[in-house]
Formats: sequence, C-alpha cells, structure tokens
Amino acid sequence: MLREGGWQFVRCDDANSFNDWLSKDDHGFPTIGGEEPHLGSHLLVELYECDSSSLEQEYTVAAVMHQAAVDSRATVVAESFHEFQPFGVSGAVIIQESHYTIHTWPEHRYAAVDLFYCGGTVQVQRAVETLRERFKPQRMKFLIVRRGLQSEVKA
Amino acid sequence: MLREGGWQFVRCDDANSFNDWLSKDDHGFPTIGGEEPHLGSHLLVELYECDSSSLEQEYTVAAVMHQAAVDSRATVVAESFHEFQPFGVSGAVIIQESHYTIHTWPEHRYAAVDLFYCGGTVQVQRAVETLRERFKPQRMKFLIVRRGLQSEVKA
Repeated sequence: MLREGGWQFVRCDDANSFNDWLSKDDHGFPTIGGEEPHLGSHLLVELYECDSSSLEQEYTVAAVMHQAAVDSRATVVAESFHEFQPFGVSGAVIIQESHYTIHTWPEHRYAAVDLFYCGGTVQVQRAVETLRERFKPQRMKFLIVRRGLQSEVKA
Repeated sequence: MLREGGWQFVRCDDANSFNDWLSKDDHGFPTIGGEEPHLGSHLLVELYECDSSSLEQEYTVAAVMHQAAVDSRATVVAESFHEFQPFGVSGAVIIQESHYTIHTWPEHRYAAVDLFYCGGTVQVQRAVETLRERFKPQRMKFLIVRRGLQSEVKA
C-alpha cells in the first residue's frame, strides 16, 4: 500500500500474486491493514505483449469486456465500443456496480483496462482472469486507486 | 511528478493551479521534465462537496459529461448512462480520442470522474472547467496516471 498526498494505492506487478491476493476476499477487493474506508475502488490494469489480433476489432474487444463483466458476476446495463482507424478500440461496459473500460493499441500489443467498482457483489478477480485468458498478455501491471476516501468526503 | 514501481503520476490538489498548468499546453496535457513518453494519459478527478442536486439524475449528469466532451473539442462517438436506486449515476462518454467516465454519490456530494485521453486534439482543461462550473465542487483533487509507458510497452 502506498499513500501519497491524500491518495491511497495498492500496487502489484505480478498477475498470479495479485489474483491470489484478490481472492482473499470473495468480492475481489480485500483491503490492506491501515487502509482508510472509501466509496469505490478503481483498478487500473496494464496488459503488455498481448495477442495483437485480439485487440484489433471492436467486436472481439467488446465480447471480451462483456465476458469479463459476466464472469465477475456484474450486471451489465449498457455497453458502448468504437473502433478507430488505423488502429485501436475504445469502449465501456456500464455495470450496475460501476463500469469497466478499455483502450487498445494493437500495434503495440498493449491495452489499458479500468475496472471501476463500488458495492459488494462483483468478483473482480474473475474479470482479471478473463482479460488474461482472452488477450493473452505476457505481462500485466495492476494499480488500485481508492476513490472517495472517507476523510476527504467528510472533510 | 511521482514515480513508483513503474508507474508515473502527476498530482495536484488545487483546481486553479492545475488548470494553469494544463493550460501551458494547448491540449491540456503538458509533460513534466524527465517524464517518460507514454501512449495515453489518464486523469482521475475527485470532486468533493458538489451541488448534490446536480449529481442525482441520469439526464443531468449525462448532459454535463457530454458538455465536458464538447467543450474540450472531443468528438463524441457514443454515450451510456445509468441511474441507480436509491442514489447515484454511472456513465461513460466514448470519444474519438478515448473516454470520459463518471460515478456519482449525491448522498456524499461526491463524484469520481476519469478523463482518459490519447492523441493531441482534446483540450482537457476545458473539460475540467465544465465539471467545475456544473457540479460546483468546493474542492477537487487531480491525479494523472500515464498509461503505456514507452519502456514497458517496448520491453
């Protein structure tokens, strides 16, 4: 855990350790001792050296993000994706518990994913697994930013 | 600027100074000396002590986010918002240059906004101004997370 200027982070560079840690809590967002209560958790995922063909088409990327939402037991309420020329897909899945977004750079075999989550029913570790299985990154990096820290919201 | 475990951040707690700094670059994303090149910039905004009535309804929140996209010269390609019971709105505006998302907690007069941006045509400082004018937060906090750092994408 890292605290910096009123922000609170959890950071991990290894997908196996991260998912082991997430799995300590049924809903994928355990807290670390000493953390301040917060309204939401925002997980930023960097996916490197992906299968580039999986990042190219709107249809494929939207299907993976939808599957990630379903696998994490989230209730999908809306979806919106867009394919860019010459490269890349951007999109969002709005779930009842918040939203998952993605932007892909197939030419760099890279994708930036955000899983923004509040409430206790989403099993976000399953979404991470789905991203890993479908985009096949060789490396991943994770950062959780806690949103709406109690001391700030009440201040 | 802060570097931590392969992540690179820019942080600011004051809306005036932050927008002064953003305005140094026409497109709202100046870099700081020594920063590593990156594919995207992801601006996390915390809005505290907002006008709570502006955070309650899907229609109002969607209108502000749409206006923020238009004001920042972004090209809107899709929008998706959802109102929760008993409180809160979640949604995303997919823009040609990436996406803007929001989740609101009117009961806490708090909103979490993300402006994810790549490419050189968006004037993100205008989006920040629109959020400030329309949600009327008494305090804001900003964190830019650089996404797809050159050394990581190429590694």
